[in-house]
Amino acid sequence: MFRNFKLVPNVIFGRGCFSQLDEIIEKQRADSDSWVVFVTDDVFKGKELEKRLPLHKKDMLLWVDVTDEPKTEYVDKLTIEVKKFASNLPSAVIGIGGGSSMDLAKSISLMLTNAGSSTLYQGWDLIKNPAICHIAVPTLSGTGAEVSRTAVLTGPEKKLGLNSDYTVFDQIVLDPELTETVPMDQHFYTGMDCYIHCIESLEGTFLNEFSKSYGEKSLDLCRQVFLDDHPDSADKLMMASFFGGMSIAYSQVGACHALSYGLSYVLGTHHGIGCCITFDYLDEFYADGVKEFRSMMNKCNIELPRGLVADLEEDQIETMVTVALGLDPLWENCLGKDWKNIMTRDKAKSLFLKM
Amino acid sequence: MFRNFKLVPNVIFGRGCFSQLDEIIEKQRADSDSWVVFVTDDVFKGKELEKRLPLHKKDMLLWVDVTDEPKTEYVDKLTIEVKKFASNLPSAVIGIGGGSSMDLAKSISLMLTNAGSSTLYQGWDLIKNPAICHIAVPTLSGTGAEVSRTAVLTGPEKKLGLNSDYTVFDQIVLDPELTETVPMDQHFYTGMDCYIHCIESLEGTFLNEFSKSYGEKSLDLCRQVFLDDHPDSADKLMMASFFGGMSIAYSQVGACHALSYGLSYVLGTHHGIGCCITFDYLDEFYADGVKEFRSMMNKCNIELPRGLVADLEEDQIETMVTVALGLDPLWENCLGKDWKNIMTRDKAKSLFLKM
Repeated sequence: MFRNFKLVPNVIFGRGCFSQLDEIIEKQRADSDSWVVFVTDDVFKGKELEKRLPLHKKDMLLWVDVTDEPKTEYVDKLTIEVKKFASNLPSAVIGIGGGSSMDLAKSISLMLTNAGSSTLYQGWDLIKNPAICHIAVPTLSGTGAEVSRTAVLTGPEKKLGLNSDYTVFDQIVLDPELTETVPMDQHFYTGMDCYIHCIESLEGTFLNEFSKSYGEKSLDLCRQVFLDDHPDSADKLMMASFFGGMSIAYSQVGACHALSYGLSYVLGTHHGIGCCITFDYLDEFYADGVKEFRSMMNKCNIELPRGLVADLEEDQIETMVTVALGLDPLWENCLGKDWKNIMTRDKAKSLFLKM
Repeated sequence: MFRNFKLVPNVIFGRGCFSQLDEIIEKQRADSDSWVVFVTDDVFKGKELEKRLPLHKKDMLLWVDVTDEPKTEYVDKLTIEVKKFASNLPSAVIGIGGGSSMDLAKSISLMLTNAGSSTLYQGWDLIKNPAICHIAVPTLSGTGAEVSRTAVLTGPEKKLGLNSDYTVFDQIVLDPELTETVPMDQHFYTGMDCYIHCIESLEGTFLNEFSKSYGEKSLDLCRQVFLDDHPDSADKLMMASFFGGMSIAYSQVGACHALSYGLSYVLGTHHGIGCCITFDYLDEFYADGVKEFRSMMNKCNIELPRGLVADLEEDQIETMVTVALGLDPLWENCLGKDWKNIMTRDKAKSLFLKM
């Protein structure tokens, strides 16, 4: 049984294509009562991008705070705000920002048509009704959120995405110019999310030629961005992110993502930097990848935070181990079916203690 | 202005995934009156594949003859047959075969919902109504027809496709096993259609990073298939074809395709072999590509037909030149805006006379 993979059906790519957003949204405006909501990372408040938003008179500009990664409670609150904004539902939800903003836009578009709290839908294929048309405009490359079928949310009980075919964006607007103002450290951490994802999937046991073709080209593009100097590195990283996301169709991440979830769960570490912190201690699983990752760190003058775990309470470290080892498919992809005999609790703990 | 590219929204890839076709079609069967039509290359009549077609009681099996490339007259005739088969329209049109069969399936799915002859819709965005759901099952890799937004048809007045977003398949089923019985020469010619397409687009003037990423990986896969020995070369060529088709979003073919259209128009030469015959005389435009192409020919023991043009009537050769030089965008992509001063009628004629 192979997965029937749902792709984003409309893609526009090019420097400056953000200026075509108004025309793209126009097709969703059915009549004079139609309106759309721009779910926008509040880092752009007062910035150039705010002035360029193609807001019409009845539209809603919803600033979102992504200091913390998206929570179900926050999604529920935002969905109510959108519902209260007008007597009819919006014709489209446009997510503008990085992975968190895009995941919030996906979540809102789903929760506008599916009753109850978003916590009810954390899992696989629990969403019942199609979403409101949702469009992504990534301003940060590497997350793959622009093509994924999940919106990752932290709920009261679990960190688990709204995974469904309805979650996939209806349209993505890929304008590399929008990513050029990202600070260097964030550019690096998010780019490495993509790089590490590719290493884990290409060295995993789950691969087929579809995912391999996408993963290999994504890796090649990451190398061009982080090891060479290209005037069009923003274009390349945007494509690396898109290809990395596409490669997940028939592949899976591995040890680094699993351990980083433990770290994030306990310390609230953001995903990109969490992957970097973890990957740096995984020589024994991904020798060549870790070596190359360190060259990229050097070239970008990145210093990783160290000594995050050793001084934690014993039960916090145990929680990290439990969260990390709960991700069976990731470990099976990395180490094979026999993974439990290799990645014991002691082994996982010893890795965390280095971080 | 960038093109907003319509992608095939559902893709399943894997050895043996053809056996999931029934389940995929099932979603289109709304009630007990629903039926679907299998537009199938008649080369499979009496073959194993015929037995594996998931035909339900009310379904139609429509064998198609692709000895000649698809004509508007043939499409109109087939559409009438499908309309006459039942009092209601089919719920889905499934195209099984190579580029011609897939293009016939696309055309029928469009003509079932758009009145009049298919000749009315040869061109760009002339189709008015969405097509019947259409699904492709390629049994030959390299054409890119599985992802393209055109169905190439020869009409009484012109050879021109039904180009529209509605032309794009709703679903593709990529099962590399189905391509393994293709004869070696056809495998080579169709694979080279993909290879040459990549060379023309990557060396052209129209490229951006989206098309470049897809084109480069497609080329890499073609090299693995035709220069190395891989047990999974069928998987690789299927991905090369998919990536080659995707790369066309923001690119264009070039001199080889333009000249080959002239050859095909006058001699009826099939597309893949026509590209090969032409490419072999284009050292001066694609030096490295032609050299590599010849290595691939040697490795696959392919002997191209020679001396096709010299003995033709003068007016036939002039027609070839006229058809080839009519394709402005292809020449501009290859030679830049000044192409008319480089590719004169005399120059084009001298190239044809070598073939």
